[in-house]
Amino acid sequence: MFWFQKEIFLPARKRGFHLITGELLREIPEIQQISIGMANIFIKHTSASLTINENADPDVRRDMETYFSKSVPDGAPYFVHTMEGPDDMPAHIKASIMGPSLNIPIQNGRLNLGTWQGIYLCEHRDYGGSRKIVITLQGEKK
Amino acid sequence: MFWFQKEIFLPARKRGFHLITGELLREIPEIQQISIGMANIFIKHTSASLTINENADPDVRRDMETYFSKSVPDGAPYFVHTMEGPDDMPAHIKASIMGPSLNIPIQNGRLNLGTWQGIYLCEHRDYGGSRKIVITLQGEKK
Amino acid sequence: MFWFQKEIFLPARKRGFHLITGELLREIPEIQQISIGMANIFIKHTSASLTINENADPDVRRDMETYFSKSVPDGAPYFVHTMEGPDDMPAHIKASIMGPSLNIPIQNGRLNLGTWQGIYLCEHRDYGGSRKIVITLQGEKK
Repeated sequence: MFWFQKEIFLPARKRGFHLITGELLREIPEIQQISIGMANIFIKHTSASLTINENADPDVRRDMETYFSKSVPDGAPYFVHTMEGPDDMPAHIKASIMGPSLNIPIQNGRLNLGTWQGIYLCEHRDYGGSRKIVITLQGEKK
Repeated sequence: MFWFQKEIFLPARKRGFHLITGELLREIPEIQQISIGMANIFIKHTSASLTINENADPDVRRDMETYFSKSVPDGAPYFVHTMEGPDDMPAHIKASIMGPSLNIPIQNGRLNLGTWQGIYLCEHRDYGGSRKIVITLQGEKK
Repeated sequence: MFWFQKEIFLPARKRGFHLITGELLREIPEIQQISIGMANIFIKHTSASLTINENADPDVRRDMETYFSKSVPDGAPYFVHTMEGPDDMPAHIKASIMGPSLNIPIQNGRLNLGTWQGIYLCEHRDYGGSRKIVITLQGEKK
Protein backbone atom coordinates (compact mmCIF):
# COMPACT_ATOMS: atom_id res chain seq x y z
CA MET A 1 0.00 0.00 0.00
CA PHE A 2 1.33 3.37 -1.10
CA TRP A 3 0.27 6.80 0.25
CA PHE A 4 1.49 10.15 -1.01
CA GLN A 5 0.32 13.70 -0.27
CA LYS A 6 1.55 16.97 -1.66
CA GLU A 7 0.42 20.58 -1.37
CA ILE A 8 0.96 22.84 -4.36
CA PHE A 9 0.19 26.43 -5.31
CA LEU A 10 -1.44 27.24 -8.63
CA PRO A 11 -0.58 30.70 -9.98
CA ALA A 12 -3.30 33.37 -9.98
CA ARG A 13 -5.67 33.10 -12.90
CA LYS A 14 -8.41 35.36 -14.15
CA ARG A 15 -12.02 34.60 -13.38
CA GLY A 16 -13.27 31.65 -15.39
CA PHE A 17 -12.64 27.98 -16.06
CA HIS A 18 -9.08 26.80 -16.71
CA LEU A 19 -7.69 23.46 -17.86
CA ILE A 20 -4.98 22.32 -15.40
CA THR A 21 -4.57 18.58 -16.09
CA GLY A 22 -1.01 18.82 -17.37
CA GLU A 23 0.06 21.22 -14.63
CA LEU A 24 -1.21 18.82 -11.94
CA LEU A 25 0.31 15.72 -13.51
CA ARG A 26 3.77 17.31 -13.66
CA GLU A 27 3.60 17.60 -9.86
CA ILE A 28 2.98 13.89 -9.23
CA PRO A 29 5.43 11.59 -11.04
CA GLU A 30 4.85 9.29 -8.02
CA ILE A 31 1.56 8.19 -9.63
CA GLN A 32 3.58 5.94 -11.96
CA GLN A 33 4.32 3.62 -9.03
CA ILE A 34 0.62 2.74 -8.55
CA SER A 35 -1.07 -0.16 -10.34
CA ILE A 36 -4.62 0.35 -8.96
CA GLY A 37 -5.55 3.32 -6.81
CA MET A 38 -7.31 6.63 -6.25
CA ALA A 39 -6.27 10.24 -6.63
CA ASN A 40 -7.97 12.95 -4.58
CA ILE A 41 -7.50 16.56 -5.62
CA PHE A 42 -8.74 19.05 -3.04
CA ILE A 43 -8.83 22.86 -3.20
CA LYS A 44 -8.38 24.66 0.13
CA HIS A 45 -10.64 27.61 -0.77
CA THR A 46 -14.33 28.53 -0.67
CA SER A 47 -14.48 30.82 -3.71
CA ALA A 48 -12.83 28.57 -6.28
CA SER A 49 -13.58 24.95 -7.13
CA LEU A 50 -12.56 21.94 -9.21
CA THR A 51 -14.46 20.07 -11.85
CA ILE A 52 -13.93 17.68 -14.77
CA ASN A 53 -15.11 18.64 -18.22
CA GLU A 54 -14.32 18.74 -21.95
CA ASN A 55 -10.60 19.18 -22.60
CA ALA A 56 -10.55 20.21 -26.28
CA ASP A 57 -12.60 23.30 -27.16
CA PRO A 58 -11.86 26.49 -25.14
CA ASP A 59 -15.40 27.65 -25.93
CA VAL A 60 -16.70 25.08 -23.46
CA ARG A 61 -14.76 26.81 -20.67
CA ARG A 62 -16.05 30.19 -21.88
CA ASP A 63 -19.66 28.97 -21.96
CA MET A 64 -19.30 27.49 -18.46
CA GLU A 65 -18.27 30.91 -17.13
CA THR A 66 -21.11 32.61 -19.03
CA TYR A 67 -23.70 30.18 -17.74
CA PHE A 68 -22.68 30.11 -14.09
CA SER A 69 -22.34 33.90 -13.89
CA LYS A 70 -25.84 34.26 -15.32
CA SER A 71 -27.18 31.60 -13.01
CA VAL A 72 -25.56 33.10 -9.88
CA PRO A 73 -25.44 36.83 -10.63
CA ASP A 74 -22.86 39.18 -9.11
CA GLY A 75 -24.39 41.71 -6.76
CA ALA A 76 -27.86 40.12 -6.61
CA PRO A 77 -30.00 42.32 -4.31
CA TYR A 78 -30.90 39.45 -1.95
CA PHE A 79 -27.31 38.82 -0.80
CA VAL A 80 -26.43 40.01 2.70
CA HIS A 81 -22.76 38.92 2.71
CA THR A 82 -21.48 41.72 0.44
CA MET A 83 -18.54 43.24 2.32
CA GLU A 84 -15.93 41.48 0.18
CA GLY A 85 -17.42 42.66 -3.10
CA PRO A 86 -20.27 41.74 -5.49
CA ASP A 87 -18.39 38.67 -6.81
CA ASP A 88 -17.74 37.11 -3.39
CA MET A 89 -21.06 35.56 -2.37
CA PRO A 90 -21.68 34.22 -5.92
CA ALA A 91 -18.20 32.68 -5.72
CA HIS A 92 -19.13 30.82 -2.52
CA ILE A 93 -22.31 29.49 -4.12
CA LYS A 94 -20.55 28.34 -7.28
CA ALA A 95 -17.91 26.66 -5.10
CA SER A 96 -20.63 24.56 -3.45
CA ILE A 97 -22.32 23.73 -6.76
CA MET A 98 -19.09 22.45 -8.32
CA GLY A 99 -17.49 21.17 -5.12
CA PRO A 100 -13.99 21.33 -3.62
CA SER A 101 -12.62 17.93 -4.62
CA LEU A 102 -12.24 15.30 -7.33
CA ASN A 103 -11.73 11.57 -6.89
CA ILE A 104 -10.22 9.95 -9.94
CA PRO A 105 -9.33 6.27 -10.33
CA ILE A 106 -5.71 5.35 -11.04
CA GLN A 107 -4.95 2.48 -13.42
CA ASN A 108 -1.45 1.29 -14.29
CA GLY A 109 0.35 4.47 -13.26
CA ARG A 110 -2.08 6.94 -14.84
CA LEU A 111 -5.31 8.79 -14.11
CA ASN A 112 -8.07 6.66 -15.63
CA LEU A 113 -9.85 9.58 -17.35
CA GLY A 114 -12.02 9.45 -20.46
CA THR A 115 -10.56 10.69 -23.75
CA TRP A 116 -12.32 14.04 -23.51
CA GLN A 117 -12.01 14.60 -19.77
CA GLY A 118 -9.76 17.28 -18.33
CA ILE A 119 -9.42 18.82 -14.88
CA TYR A 120 -10.63 22.41 -14.53
CA LEU A 121 -9.75 25.01 -11.95
CA CYS A 122 -12.90 27.11 -11.58
CA GLU A 123 -11.84 30.58 -10.46
CA HIS A 124 -14.94 32.36 -9.24
CA ARG A 125 -13.38 35.61 -7.97
CA ASP A 126 -12.35 38.58 -10.12
CA TYR A 127 -8.98 38.63 -8.33
CA GLY A 128 -8.69 35.32 -6.54
CA GLY A 129 -4.92 35.16 -6.34
CA SER A 130 -2.86 31.99 -6.05
CA ARG A 131 -4.78 28.83 -5.10
CA LYS A 132 -3.65 26.01 -2.80
CA ILE A 133 -4.34 22.40 -3.83
CA VAL A 134 -3.77 19.15 -1.91
CA ILE A 135 -3.13 16.06 -4.03
CA THR A 136 -3.43 12.69 -2.29
CA LEU A 137 -2.51 9.46 -4.07
CA GLN A 138 -3.11 6.00 -2.69
CA GLY A 139 -3.00 2.53 -4.14
CA GLU A 140 -1.26 -0.74 -4.71
CA LYS A 141 2.40 -0.52 -5.70
CA LYS A 142 3.30 -1.98 -9.05
CA MET B 1 -5.89 -4.39 2.14
CA PHE B 2 -7.97 -5.21 -0.94
CA TRP B 3 -8.07 -3.25 -4.22
CA PHE B 4 -10.30 -3.99 -7.19
CA GLN B 5 -11.00 -2.00 -10.34
CA LYS B 6 -13.33 -2.78 -13.22
CA GLU B 7 -14.48 -0.91 -16.29
CA ILE B 8 -17.99 -1.55 -17.53
CA PHE B 9 -20.25 -0.27 -20.28
CA LEU B 10 -23.80 0.80 -19.55
CA PRO B 11 -26.18 0.40 -22.50
CA ALA B 12 -27.44 3.57 -24.24
CA ARG B 13 -30.34 5.21 -22.43
CA LYS B 14 -32.63 8.03 -23.39
CA ARG B 15 -32.06 11.51 -22.00
CA GLY B 16 -33.01 11.72 -18.34
CA PHE B 17 -32.26 10.21 -14.94
CA HIS B 18 -32.03 6.41 -14.59
CA LEU B 19 -31.74 4.18 -11.53
CA ILE B 20 -28.74 1.84 -11.99
CA THR B 21 -27.99 0.55 -8.47
CA GLY B 22 -28.84 -3.08 -9.21
CA GLU B 23 -27.04 -3.05 -12.55
CA LEU B 24 -23.84 -1.81 -10.89
CA LEU B 25 -24.01 -4.21 -7.96
CA ARG B 26 -24.32 -7.23 -10.26
CA GLU B 27 -20.91 -6.26 -11.69
CA ILE B 28 -19.07 -6.30 -8.36
CA PRO B 29 -19.63 -9.47 -6.32
CA GLU B 30 -16.08 -8.77 -5.04
CA ILE B 31 -17.57 -6.19 -2.66
CA GLN B 32 -18.68 -9.03 -0.39
CA GLN B 33 -15.04 -9.63 0.58
CA ILE B 34 -14.71 -6.18 2.19
CA SER B 35 -15.53 -5.49 5.85
CA ILE B 36 -14.85 -1.71 5.88
CA GLY B 37 -14.03 0.21 2.73
CA MET B 38 -14.91 2.69 -0.01
CA ALA B 39 -16.43 2.35 -3.45
CA ASN B 40 -15.70 4.94 -6.13
CA ILE B 41 -17.90 5.01 -9.20
CA PHE B 42 -16.56 7.22 -11.97
CA ILE B 43 -18.07 8.06 -15.36
CA LYS B 44 -15.58 8.64 -18.20
CA HIS B 45 -17.71 11.25 -19.99
CA THR B 46 -18.39 14.99 -19.91
CA SER B 47 -22.03 15.00 -20.98
CA ALA B 48 -23.42 12.45 -18.53
CA SER B 49 -23.00 12.25 -14.78
CA LEU B 50 -23.73 10.24 -11.65
CA THR B 51 -25.74 11.17 -8.59
CA ILE B 52 -27.51 9.59 -5.63
CA ASN B 53 -31.20 10.25 -5.10
CA GLU B 54 -34.58 8.78 -4.20
CA ASN B 55 -34.92 5.18 -5.37
CA ALA B 56 -38.68 4.60 -5.17
CA ASP B 57 -40.84 7.03 -7.16
CA PRO B 58 -40.04 7.36 -10.90
CA ASP B 59 -41.60 10.84 -10.77
CA VAL B 60 -38.53 12.05 -8.88
CA ARG B 61 -36.35 11.09 -11.85
CA ARG B 62 -38.83 12.77 -14.21
CA ASP B 63 -38.88 15.98 -12.14
CA MET B 64 -35.07 16.03 -11.99
CA GLU B 65 -34.95 16.00 -15.81
CA THR B 66 -37.65 18.69 -16.01
CA TYR B 67 -35.88 20.94 -13.53
CA PHE B 68 -32.35 20.66 -14.91
CA SER B 69 -33.49 21.13 -18.51
CA LYS B 70 -35.35 24.29 -17.48
CA SER B 71 -32.41 25.50 -15.44
CA VAL B 72 -29.86 24.86 -18.22
CA PRO B 73 -31.88 25.36 -21.43
CA ASP B 74 -31.02 23.66 -24.71
CA GLY B 75 -29.93 26.12 -27.37
CA ALA B 76 -29.61 29.15 -25.08
CA PRO B 77 -28.51 32.10 -27.23
CA TYR B 78 -25.40 32.86 -25.15
CA PHE B 79 -23.71 29.51 -25.88
CA VAL B 80 -20.77 29.61 -28.31
CA HIS B 81 -19.96 25.87 -28.27
CA THR B 82 -22.91 24.76 -30.43
CA MET B 83 -21.37 22.62 -33.17
CA GLU B 84 -22.40 19.33 -31.58
CA GLY B 85 -26.04 20.35 -31.22
CA PRO B 86 -28.25 22.40 -28.87
CA ASP B 87 -28.17 19.74 -26.14
CA ASP B 88 -24.36 19.47 -25.98
CA MET B 89 -23.25 22.54 -24.03
CA PRO B 90 -26.13 22.15 -21.52
CA ALA B 91 -25.00 18.53 -21.08
CA HIS B 92 -21.47 19.68 -20.16
CA ILE B 93 -22.84 22.15 -17.62
CA LYS B 94 -25.17 19.60 -16.01
CA ALA B 95 -22.24 17.16 -15.86
CA SER B 96 -20.27 19.66 -13.77
CA ILE B 97 -23.24 20.46 -11.52
CA MET B 98 -23.85 16.79 -10.69
CA GLY B 99 -20.23 15.63 -10.96
CA PRO B 100 -18.50 12.60 -12.49
CA SER B 101 -18.05 10.38 -9.45
CA LEU B 102 -19.59 8.96 -6.29
CA ASN B 103 -17.78 7.80 -3.16
CA ILE B 104 -19.85 5.42 -1.10
CA PRO B 105 -18.80 3.74 2.14
CA ILE B 106 -18.70 -0.06 2.26
CA GLN B 107 -19.78 -1.83 5.44
CA ASN B 108 -19.75 -5.60 5.88
CA GLY B 109 -19.73 -6.48 2.19
CA ARG B 110 -22.37 -3.98 1.08
CA LEU B 111 -22.72 -0.34 0.00
CA ASN B 112 -23.71 1.55 3.14
CA LEU B 113 -26.54 3.52 1.50
CA GLY B 114 -29.61 4.96 3.18
CA THR B 115 -32.95 3.18 2.73
CA TRP B 116 -34.14 5.59 0.05
CA GLN B 117 -30.84 6.15 -1.73
CA GLY B 118 -30.21 4.82 -5.23
CA ILE B 119 -27.51 5.47 -7.81
CA TYR B 120 -28.61 7.45 -10.88
CA LEU B 121 -27.06 7.64 -14.30
CA CYS B 122 -27.83 11.17 -15.51
CA GLU B 123 -27.90 11.08 -19.32
CA HIS B 124 -27.78 14.67 -20.51
CA ARG B 125 -27.57 14.07 -24.28
CA ASP B 126 -30.49 13.27 -26.57
CA TYR B 127 -28.47 10.42 -28.08
CA GLY B 128 -25.59 9.82 -25.70
CA GLY B 129 -24.90 6.20 -26.60
CA SER B 130 -23.28 3.64 -24.34
CA ARG B 131 -21.49 5.03 -21.25
CA LYS B 132 -18.23 3.80 -19.73
CA ILE B 133 -17.97 3.53 -15.93
CA VAL B 134 -14.95 2.70 -13.73
CA ILE B 135 -15.73 1.03 -10.41
CA THR B 136 -12.96 0.99 -7.82
CA LEU B 137 -13.34 -0.91 -4.54
CA GLN B 138 -10.90 -0.75 -1.67
CA GLY B 139 -10.98 -1.85 1.94
CA GLU B 140 -10.12 -4.30 4.63
CA LYS B 141 -10.69 -7.94 3.81
CA LYS B 142 -13.16 -9.81 5.97
CA MET C 1 -3.01 0.77 6.99
CA PHE C 2 -5.81 1.96 9.26
CA TRP C 3 -9.57 1.79 8.53
CA PHE C 4 -12.31 3.21 10.74
CA GLN C 5 -16.03 3.66 10.11
CA LYS C 6 -18.67 5.17 12.37
CA GLU C 7 -22.33 6.03 11.94
CA ILE C 8 -23.65 9.04 13.83
CA PHE C 9 -26.93 10.92 14.14
CA LEU C 10 -27.04 14.68 13.85
CA PRO C 11 -29.91 16.31 15.77
CA ALA C 12 -32.78 17.82 13.77
CA ARG C 13 -32.04 21.30 12.46
CA LYS C 14 -34.20 23.87 10.77
CA ARG C 15 -34.10 24.29 7.02
CA GLY C 16 -30.89 25.97 5.92
CA PHE C 17 -27.11 25.62 6.00
CA HIS C 18 -25.40 24.70 9.28
CA LEU C 19 -21.74 24.57 10.27
CA ILE C 20 -20.97 21.13 11.76
CA THR C 21 -17.17 20.84 11.61
CA GLY C 22 -16.65 20.77 15.39
CA GLU C 23 -19.55 18.39 15.96
CA LEU C 24 -18.09 15.90 13.45
CA LEU C 25 -14.53 16.15 14.75
CA ARG C 26 -15.62 15.39 18.30
CA GLU C 27 -16.90 12.03 17.01
CA ILE C 28 -13.58 10.91 15.49
CA PRO C 29 -10.62 11.21 17.87
CA GLU C 30 -9.27 8.20 15.92
CA ILE C 31 -8.17 10.63 13.18
CA GLN C 32 -5.18 11.55 15.33
CA GLN C 33 -3.64 8.15 14.62
CA ILE C 34 -3.35 8.85 10.88
CA SER C 35 -0.31 10.51 9.29
CA ILE C 36 -1.56 10.63 5.68
CA GLY C 37 -5.06 9.61 4.71
CA MET C 38 -8.58 10.41 3.55
CA ALA C 39 -11.84 11.11 5.36
CA ASN C 40 -15.16 10.41 3.67
CA ILE C 41 -18.29 11.93 5.16
CA PHE C 42 -21.49 10.53 3.69
CA ILE C 43 -25.11 11.49 4.40
CA LYS C 44 -27.66 8.66 4.13
CA HIS C 45 -30.51 10.88 2.88
CA THR C 46 -31.84 12.31 -0.38
CA SER C 47 -33.26 15.60 0.91
CA ALA C 48 -30.24 16.90 2.80
CA SER C 49 -26.63 17.20 1.67
CA LEU C 50 -23.09 18.10 2.69
CA THR C 51 -20.83 20.83 1.41
CA ILE C 52 -17.72 22.79 2.35
CA ASN C 53 -17.90 26.56 2.56
CA GLU C 54 -16.92 29.69 4.47
CA ASN C 55 -16.75 29.06 8.23
CA ALA C 56 -16.79 32.58 9.65
CA ASP C 57 -19.76 34.74 8.65
CA PRO C 58 -23.25 33.29 9.33
CA ASP C 59 -24.55 35.53 6.53
CA VAL C 60 -22.89 33.22 4.02
CA ARG C 61 -25.04 30.34 5.29
CA ARG C 62 -28.11 32.60 5.14
CA ASP C 63 -27.35 33.69 1.57
CA MET C 64 -26.79 30.09 0.50
CA GLU C 65 -30.30 29.21 1.71
CA THR C 66 -31.77 32.30 0.02
CA TYR C 67 -30.07 31.56 -3.28
CA PHE C 68 -30.84 27.85 -3.50
CA SER C 69 -34.47 28.32 -2.50
CA LYS C 70 -34.88 30.95 -5.22
CA SER C 71 -33.08 28.78 -7.73
CA VAL C 72 -35.13 25.65 -6.92
CA PRO C 73 -38.51 27.05 -5.84
CA ASP C 74 -40.86 25.23 -3.46
CA GLY C 75 -44.06 24.16 -5.14
CA ALA C 76 -42.97 24.92 -8.71
CA PRO C 77 -45.91 24.05 -10.98
CA TYR C 78 -43.90 21.62 -13.17
CA PHE C 79 -43.18 19.17 -10.32
CA VAL C 80 -45.11 15.91 -10.40
CA HIS C 81 -43.65 14.37 -7.22
CA THR C 82 -45.59 16.53 -4.73
CA MET C 83 -47.19 14.07 -2.32
CA GLU C 84 -44.65 14.72 0.44
CA GLY C 85 -45.11 18.48 0.33
CA PRO C 86 -43.95 21.50 -1.70
CA ASP C 87 -40.44 21.42 -0.17
CA ASP C 88 -39.75 17.75 -0.97
CA MET C 89 -38.92 17.70 -4.68
CA PRO C 90 -36.78 20.88 -4.39
CA ALA C 91 -34.96 19.14 -1.52
CA HIS C 92 -34.11 16.18 -3.77
CA ILE C 93 -32.79 18.50 -6.47
CA LYS C 94 -30.66 20.52 -4.06
CA ALA C 95 -29.31 17.26 -2.65
CA SER C 96 -28.04 16.28 -6.11
CA ILE C 97 -26.58 19.74 -6.78
CA MET C 98 -24.57 19.75 -3.55
CA GLY C 99 -23.99 15.99 -3.33
CA PRO C 100 -24.13 13.40 -0.55
CA SER C 101 -20.46 13.13 0.39
CA LEU C 102 -17.20 14.93 1.08
CA ASN C 103 -13.69 13.58 0.65
CA ILE C 104 -11.16 15.49 2.71
CA PRO C 105 -7.41 14.78 2.93
CA ILE C 106 -5.94 13.93 6.34
CA GLN C 107 -2.48 15.24 7.21
CA ASN C 108 -0.71 14.55 10.49
CA GLY C 109 -3.82 13.59 12.46
CA ARG C 110 -6.05 16.42 11.22
CA LEU C 111 -8.39 17.28 8.36
CA ASN C 112 -6.28 19.24 5.89
CA LEU C 113 -8.83 22.02 5.34
CA GLY C 114 -8.14 25.61 4.30
CA THR C 115 -8.30 28.34 6.95
CA TRP C 116 -11.78 29.45 5.92
CA GLN C 117 -13.27 26.04 5.12
CA GLY C 118 -15.96 24.48 7.28
CA ILE C 119 -18.27 21.51 6.80
CA TYR C 120 -21.94 22.37 6.28
CA LEU C 121 -25.01 20.23 6.78
CA CYS C 122 -27.48 21.45 4.15
CA GLU C 123 -30.98 20.76 5.47
CA HIS C 124 -33.35 21.13 2.55
CA ARG C 125 -36.62 20.06 4.23
CA ASP C 126 -38.78 22.25 6.46
CA TYR C 127 -38.91 19.43 9.02
CA GLY C 128 -36.15 17.03 8.06
CA GLY C 129 -35.63 15.46 11.46
CA SER C 130 -32.44 13.81 12.66
CA ARG C 131 -29.87 12.99 9.94
CA LYS C 132 -27.65 9.92 9.70
CA ILE C 133 -23.99 10.37 8.68
CA VAL C 134 -21.31 7.74 7.94
CA ILE C 135 -17.73 8.80 8.61
CA THR C 136 -14.98 6.65 7.08
CA LEU C 137 -11.32 7.27 7.87
CA GLN C 138 -8.42 5.54 6.18
CA GLY C 139 -4.71 6.11 6.05
CA GLU C 140 -1.21 5.32 7.21
CA LYS C 141 -0.76 4.96 10.94
CA LYS C 142 1.64 7.39 12.57
